[in-house]
Amino acid sequence: MNILKVALCQINVIDNKEANIKEAETYIKIARDKGAELAILPEMFNCPYENSKFRKYSEIAEDSITLQHIQKLAKELKIYILAGSIPEKEINEDGSESIYNTSFFYDNNGKLIGKHRKMHLFDIDVKGKIRFKESDTLTAGDDFTLVDTKWGKIGLGICYDIRFPELARILTQKGARILIYPGAFNLTTGPSHWETLFKARALDNQVYCIGVSPALNQKGEYNAFGHSIICDPWGDIVAEAKYDEKLITEILDLDLIDNVRKDIPVLANRRTDLYQINEVKKE
Amino acid sequence: MNILKVALCQINVIDNKEANIKEAETYIKIARDKGAELAILPEMFNCPYENSKFRKYSEIAEDSITLQHIQKLAKELKIYILAGSIPEKEINEDGSESIYNTSFFYDNNGKLIGKHRKMHLFDIDVKGKIRFKESDTLTAGDDFTLVDTKWGKIGLGICYDIRFPELARILTQKGARILIYPGAFNLTTGPSHWETLFKARALDNQVYCIGVSPALNQKGEYNAFGHSIICDPWGDIVAEAKYDEKLITEILDLDLIDNVRKDIPVLANRRTDLYQINEVKKE
Repeated sequence: MNILKVALCQINVIDNKEANIKEAETYIKIARDKGAELAILPEMFNCPYENSKFRKYSEIAEDSITLQHIQKLAKELKIYILAGSIPEKEINEDGSESIYNTSFFYDNNGKLIGKHRKMHLFDIDVKGKIRFKESDTLTAGDDFTLVDTKWGKIGLGICYDIRFPELARILTQKGARILIYPGAFNLTTGPSHWETLFKARALDNQVYCIGVSPALNQKGEYNAFGHSIICDPWGDIVAEAKYDEKLITEILDLDLIDNVRKDIPVLANRRTDLYQINEVKKE
Repeated sequence: MNILKVALCQINVIDNKEANIKEAETYIKIARDKGAELAILPEMFNCPYENSKFRKYSEIAEDSITLQHIQKLAKELKIYILAGSIPEKEINEDGSESIYNTSFFYDNNGKLIGKHRKMHLFDIDVKGKIRFKESDTLTAGDDFTLVDTKWGKIGLGICYDIRFPELARILTQKGARILIYPGAFNLTTGPSHWETLFKARALDNQVYCIGVSPALNQKGEYNAFGHSIICDPWGDIVAEAKYDEKLITEILDLDLIDNVRKDIPVLANRRTDLYQINEVKKE
């Protein structure tokens, strides 16, 4: 049987970068002790999810103390780590700065094997409930991210990216067997949409679909929904956290992907003679 | 307020065409009495959902006693009717016959305003549970179906068509505000997938998404799941039947579509600079 033991680290993120990194380390070490081969951290795992914090917490990838720490852990513990996301600073040619919401993926030798910059920025305004305009401070990434691993190709998105079926479908068309979205839904969109979106991306594409959120921090300005989740290729939820801090470890049967694709051959039955979803090639 | 009162007619379909048409008539009359402006019948409402029956029950549209009856009802009762689907026979140029799974849409003057032929044929084989190969007897349609009505554009699919996010997205891009899928899921795929698929198409596209199934006929060879459903543009289920015969009438607030699209501007936030879903134009 072709399996992957995965760990979802739903840590509590506070307004203290060092403490957040330390918390991530604690969870990754327990994950390793439990035999996990891949540990996944939440979106913005080192920084409160607030527009006013992103710039202050941002780091240039090459000099990032956060990433150096994660990379060292991956190497020392011999564990793959998908480092949820951090605010990543880049100095542009004209000297200006851009901040991206970026996920970094390390193999069990500490080698960077993939990087995803959030492609869809979260600009919502649900009257009287929640307003958030990520594009006030962040810049969107332009690349589809697929990471080659011994478990097959893993496609990456971040949070709001999951609302776009196009992204999941293109990653699947490129061979993804697992889709992972570190994400921080809130107490309005979370209860309404979180489960449906993960189930739908899993079911439509017959892949494992995983979401990892920070825990709900009642004291924070932004209240993350938690509920880190694993959906299997049949669309079933196989594990889900609640609001509080939680480490989920779960064994994924990767053969199930092929079995479901045989049972209901949705991907083969697409009418590609009538429609196509494609990347727009950059010039 | 911009509203539509809709009726979902979850009738029991048996191996008797005349009785099925009569049952549809009974439901449509009650729907009209309850003030419904649009009545929707299930997939294969005049014919058992069995490969061995489709040819026997099939009718050429122009001579169809089923459609003549429905058209007359629409005119007499002044009600829009989406006639779920029937096995539609067509004589090809070479004299051979094709059978389509086709939905016919009449306005409240009995005028045919739209027709959808199931685009994706249902060929599944879930080991030990359910095997069905529609393509043994049916031919797939090749057209995207969007019907102009006073409530806005309504996009049509049939049953298995709902598993393909591409179809729903293209219909939405063409202006659909309501998607309707007459469908007959079974006792394996129904409990696992029916709700998720309707919720997901509604949520992703911020449209009303409606499914109308035959009731569960325990005596039939194919056991339909029932559970006719209405999901709103926020992805909430606003009405759902159980297994048995049921008439659902519900008032849809069509302004909600615009409100949800303002709150979470998913359609505007698509990265069409990076990806596109398009129809493949026929030569």
